[in-house]
Amino acid sequence: MTGNHAQLRQLGLSTGKKARLHRILYQHGLGNGKAMFLPYDQGLEHGPRDFFANPAAADPKYIIRLAVEGGFNGIAVQIGLAEKFYWDYAGQVPLIVKLNGKTEIPSDDYALSPFNATVEDAVRLGADAVGYTLYIGSPAQHEDFTQFMTVRRDAERLGMPLIVWAYPRGTAIEAKGGKDSFYSVHYAARIASELGADVVKVNFPKPDKRTAVPAPYDGEFTNQQAIDAVIQAAGRSLVLVSGGEKAGDEKMLEKATESMRAGAMGLIFGRNVWQRDHDASLRLVGQLREILAQHHSD
Amino acid sequence: MTGNHAQLRQLGLSTGKKARLHRILYQHGLGNGKAMFLPYDQGLEHGPRDFFANPAAADPKYIIRLAVEGGFNGIAVQIGLAEKFYWDYAGQVPLIVKLNGKTEIPSDDYALSPFNATVEDAVRLGADAVGYTLYIGSPAQHEDFTQFMTVRRDAERLGMPLIVWAYPRGTAIEAKGGKDSFYSVHYAARIASELGADVVKVNFPKPDKRTAVPAPYDGEFTNQQAIDAVIQAAGRSLVLVSGGEKAGDEKMLEKATESMRAGAMGLIFGRNVWQRDHDASLRLVGQLREILAQHHSD
Amino acid sequence: MTGNHAQLRQLGLSTGKKARLHRILYQHGLGNGKAMFLPYDQGLEHGPRDFFANPAAADPKYIIRLAVEGGFNGIAVQIGLAEKFYWDYAGQVPLIVKLNGKTEIPSDDYALSPFNATVEDAVRLGADAVGYTLYIGSPAQHEDFTQFMTVRRDAERLGMPLIVWAYPRGTAIEAKGGKDSFYSVHYAARIASELGADVVKVNFPKPDKRTAVPAPYDGEFTNQQAIDAVIQAAGRSLVLVSGGEKAGDEKMLEKATESMRAGAMGLIFGRNVWQRDHDASLRLVGQLREILAQHHSD
Amino acid sequence: MTGNHAQLRQLGLSTGKKARLHRILYQHGLGNGKAMFLPYDQGLEHGPRDFFANPAAADPKYIIRLAVEGGFNGIAVQIGLAEKFYWDYAGQVPLIVKLNGKTEIPSDDYALSPFNATVEDAVRLGADAVGYTLYIGSPAQHEDFTQFMTVRRDAERLGMPLIVWAYPRGTAIEAKGGKDSFYSVHYAARIASELGADVVKVNFPKPDKRTAVPAPYDGEFTNQQAIDAVIQAAGRSLVLVSGGEKAGDEKMLEKATESMRAGAMGLIFGRNVWQRDHDASLRLVGQLREILAQHHSD
Amino acid sequence: MTGNHAQLRQLGLSTGKKARLHRILYQHGLGNGKAMFLPYDQGLEHGPRDFFANPAAADPKYIIRLAVEGGFNGIAVQIGLAEKFYWDYAGQVPLIVKLNGKTEIPSDDYALSPFNATVEDAVRLGADAVGYTLYIGSPAQHEDFTQFMTVRRDAERLGMPLIVWAYPRGTAIEAKGGKDSFYSVHYAARIASELGADVVKVNFPKPDKRTAVPAPYDGEFTNQQAIDAVIQAAGRSLVLVSGGEKAGDEKMLEKATESMRAGAMGLIFGRNVWQRDHDASLRLVGQLREILAQHHSD
Repeated sequence: MTGNHAQLRQLGLSTGKKARLHRILYQHGLGNGKAMFLPYDQGLEHGPRDFFANPAAADPKYIIRLAVEGGFNGIAVQIGLAEKFYWDYAGQVPLIVKLNGKTEIPSDDYALSPFNATVEDAVRLGADAVGYTLYIGSPAQHEDFTQFMTVRRDAERLGMPLIVWAYPRGTAIEAKGGKDSFYSVHYAARIASELGADVVKVNFPKPDKRTAVPAPYDGEFTNQQAIDAVIQAAGRSLVLVSGGEKAGDEKMLEKATESMRAGAMGLIFGRNVWQRDHDASLRLVGQLREILAQHHSD
Repeated sequence: MTGNHAQLRQLGLSTGKKARLHRILYQHGLGNGKAMFLPYDQGLEHGPRDFFANPAAADPKYIIRLAVEGGFNGIAVQIGLAEKFYWDYAGQVPLIVKLNGKTEIPSDDYALSPFNATVEDAVRLGADAVGYTLYIGSPAQHEDFTQFMTVRRDAERLGMPLIVWAYPRGTAIEAKGGKDSFYSVHYAARIASELGADVVKVNFPKPDKRTAVPAPYDGEFTNQQAIDAVIQAAGRSLVLVSGGEKAGDEKMLEKATESMRAGAMGLIFGRNVWQRDHDASLRLVGQLREILAQHHSD
Repeated sequence: MTGNHAQLRQLGLSTGKKARLHRILYQHGLGNGKAMFLPYDQGLEHGPRDFFANPAAADPKYIIRLAVEGGFNGIAVQIGLAEKFYWDYAGQVPLIVKLNGKTEIPSDDYALSPFNATVEDAVRLGADAVGYTLYIGSPAQHEDFTQFMTVRRDAERLGMPLIVWAYPRGTAIEAKGGKDSFYSVHYAARIASELGADVVKVNFPKPDKRTAVPAPYDGEFTNQQAIDAVIQAAGRSLVLVSGGEKAGDEKMLEKATESMRAGAMGLIFGRNVWQRDHDASLRLVGQLREILAQHHSD
Repeated sequence: MTGNHAQLRQLGLSTGKKARLHRILYQHGLGNGKAMFLPYDQGLEHGPRDFFANPAAADPKYIIRLAVEGGFNGIAVQIGLAEKFYWDYAGQVPLIVKLNGKTEIPSDDYALSPFNATVEDAVRLGADAVGYTLYIGSPAQHEDFTQFMTVRRDAERLGMPLIVWAYPRGTAIEAKGGKDSFYSVHYAARIASELGADVVKVNFPKPDKRTAVPAPYDGEFTNQQAIDAVIQAAGRSLVLVSGGEKAGDEKMLEKATESMRAGAMGLIFGRNVWQRDHDASLRLVGQLREILAQHHSD
Repeated sequence: MTGNHAQLRQLGLSTGKKARLHRILYQHGLGNGKAMFLPYDQGLEHGPRDFFANPAAADPKYIIRLAVEGGFNGIAVQIGLAEKFYWDYAGQVPLIVKLNGKTEIPSDDYALSPFNATVEDAVRLGADAVGYTLYIGSPAQHEDFTQFMTVRRDAERLGMPLIVWAYPRGTAIEAKGGKDSFYSVHYAARIASELGADVVKVNFPKPDKRTAVPAPYDGEFTNQQAIDAVIQAAGRSLVLVSGGEKAGDEKMLEKATESMRAGAMGLIFGRNVWQRDHDASLRLVGQLREILAQHHSD
């Protein structure tokens, strides 16, 4: 039995959640308990400007096909695309319905990501998980936490795994070192775990962003130390590390390796994957799969 | 089978939605899958000052009769007019109940269009679709998105096609190029699609509004390129292009042609139609029908 | 058949609404389809200072008796007075329960009139209509419209005629010519109609208030032109013209005449009636009845 | 039959409300329809600093026993004390559950007293009435009125008499003469009556506070004229006059006498009673009972 | 029968609440009615920086094991940790689910602690109590009180003891002497009792913080006088005194002794316990147990 098989049994999950996570982790992708997800909510979060680098990527069909071809463990989309595009490929790749989202247009100072779908929508569409963006540290956190509670309870009731996009955001975060600091990502992973995430998606922390962060984060930490701590802070919530903005491949693969070494359940890379042409995307995916394969028995 | 017949089958629609859209697209107007709608919510949105150009247009009876005579595929009105005026003409032209709306009086800085009717009201009145105005980019977007979710879910439950008036609005939009820029209209179409619109109504984009828009929208684009991109951004949500304020006929017909060439499902022209006398209105409608007829098999 | 009998049949009303409106219009007052209402919500809206001119008027019993003696078609009161005072006179004069209201104490800048009663309360008390104050153009219009929707739907469900006090109010209205301008009253009547009022109560417009109003309201209009336009803007919503603050009798009777000539369903005069002694009140009422009698077959 | 017996019959009360009010007015205290209540919500509203004058009064047991010994017609407490202390004395003195309350700590500028209990809580605990604090004229009045409506409807449904603490409060009140002016107390009594109070608790008005009050309150009025007007403004809502802060006994007894002469249903004195030692409290209570006895047949 | 056995009978508790409190107080820990709780919500409230002093404490398993080994009467955690970690130790130490919480990131000026779990969640997980943080004196108290009411009512309905973290907080508290002053802690204990806490957790008051506090708190009080008053202010709500930030052991044990002497039900020490190594933690716990043992028959 791999570490992850054991891990699933230790999470205190309901039958439905365990069945769906098992399907994602052992019946798709490498099938070894390590996973790679394709997020495709940028059309809402950033707008279609993200698709100019590779215009084909503006078409949800193209992306879903890419997820199937690349052997992803899941694709995360908003409700509108799930309803109109997933049915062609239903069952071929697990569906994660993203339940909230916002645009990049108004200020992020009081960031709050409102609902646009429910766990019941996800059940209706045959999804295997739902996603929720929680803006850690936002002045609007009281609305966010309460929103989140309703998702957590619905997900519990319906046996649906709950993935939390744990994103530090807002004026107070900016005043304490910014959204990528070790302090804020570390805290974010812990909060997702405290509030009941089954899986938590974090950005790779930048321990060298030390201006204005509280002690002890103003000390020196390596990337590996930081990602180790973040994954440990998530406790029994499984961790996905995000690719973020498109960056140099070498650096990105290095972070992916560090993440898996630290015990992440997997990777969730979007723009890094589809902001290049089709074949280049699949080549990168191949490299990521290799990293996953190396770490599956950790 | 025309492109649109095929299109309806590819949308993953529920039976009720498909039945009602079929009625609108194939049993009214030209019956060829291309459609022309008459919006009549200006009495609320702008006030009766819009009717001074053609006082007869202040009377809802006049407008509904015009929709019947002009062979429109639908007329969009607020609940009060739907309740008190549509019964005379029930069934003669499809009814679209606009579910929200606001006045032009308070500032648009934090634009939010509150509900004044529900999908159940629309069902009760025999409507074939409902309309919802979504203010893209407004600082009040968190309320707007949540409101919209309830409409989307009710529309799904009751098999009612959902048309989204996707309007960029508010301080942040103004700071990034304004409500008609290619950037904001492009983004608006995508958002409507991401959030679950069956049909999306957009204004024709103005790619020459480039001040303060983000890259790559600060580059040069033709009108045709812009409208092509907007319609592609809507994915499987069908697109209606709006006439907006009354403008010169030639320019307007040109935009209509460009829209249909880009793959729009149809046109939605209000003030351009009824802010002239009765016969002139029908003449213009005739010209629009001709454009629709030319593009039905694209 | 009088014009109004016909009018009731053209409104697309449900059975319950029609039955209750018929009772108000044809079984009370002159019984000719033209109506006179006595509003008595000033104790809440302005406070007991309104009663110093005629201290007897502070007693709700006095006012209800006046409504019976004067042959009014209805009396409009808040829930507290309806519960404690109407039962003595139940059935003798139709009851209109005012469902919302506010005090004059805090600023009107963001005017919103909160609920204090429901349509079900009105049903329980044997009322024949309900009243709702809608503050047209207020920055709080999004809350107001949504509140109003719940009343409209309850009124529809329970067959209760819905009278809208359509009052322009708030900072934005003040910046565009004020609450009595032709612009704002004209718009107010239209909005009530668009949102689903069965009856709309407006103040008599003042077309000479032209400072800062938008075109074409900055042109010259007579009182008669203005009230004609207002009543036409209400479409199939019946119009009641309000007396407002106590004013000179001659001017007031002139406005009453102009209103009825324009096609109003009736008049709703409060302070003008009861801020004088009992006999003087009844004399004025007699003059108003005469005006109603003259216009019943218009 | 005393005036009050008659009064109860004239209030249009439901059976349950009448039964409970009858129990309070005729089966406790003097049993003559005039009543004396002991309010004990100061621990929440002002904090335990109110108890330093007589430390024994910090103990709810002491206060409930005082109410029994003093022959009060009811004791008003918050839910926590009702749940943990009333059961010892259940039935010996009527219980009034105060349903809302706030602390003195944040500013009163936008005063709003939030719920901490429901009418159902009061029913469960065997209460004979519920109390609600309404902050007349507060900028938060729209929330307050709507909150109040839910209490009024629950009280109606469950046959529970509803006592309104009608307290002018907030910036706008301060700008118009303050919370004790004749203007504001007069208005407060009327509002409670308009919104559906069965009983209204007011502070004794101070007609000499004339700065910035609107006409005609800027004229000269005696205390007796002011309290007469306040009680008349409450209509068929029974009036309790409050003692307010501890003051000189003679002045207080004079106001009590004036209140009863004006037709008050009774007195509600807290700090004036229990901010002195036990025997002094009972002596004062004796003097108040004498005043009640003298006015019971007015 | 010990004082506490008697005490439980005097609280007017429902059967379910009494059964659960009995289990906590007499079937765990010393079993003598005095209790020691381990709070572990700092990962949410302060973030993982609290765990750098003793990295093992970042692991919820370590903490729950410590609670079992140390003979605690309960451990308080947020829902996420309760769901994923308590099942290993279910029944070995009573579980208290903390129902709300917030981060330290945004300002505390308008402190409000939003829900992240419900009483039903606690029932599902076999908890013996729930915890709620009430921010006494916060400008957001109206939302807080209303939130709290729903917890109180659910706890009543489901027989679940309700522990209130009564924490003065926010701008107004800071302006009146701060969150640890005798004034604010005294008031906090009273408020928790007035609103219906079964148990109230307070910080040890600092009577020497006298700047800007209202009379009589600006006088001199000893620590013992202050904690005596605080515990008396809680009435029949049982009191837990908190350890707060890690401090010198001698001073801490002195405060623990003063608290128990004053009649506290027990102690709730977190960081003071687990921000040292495992054996040192158990040594401190031993000293605290001794204090509890000495005071169990007071």
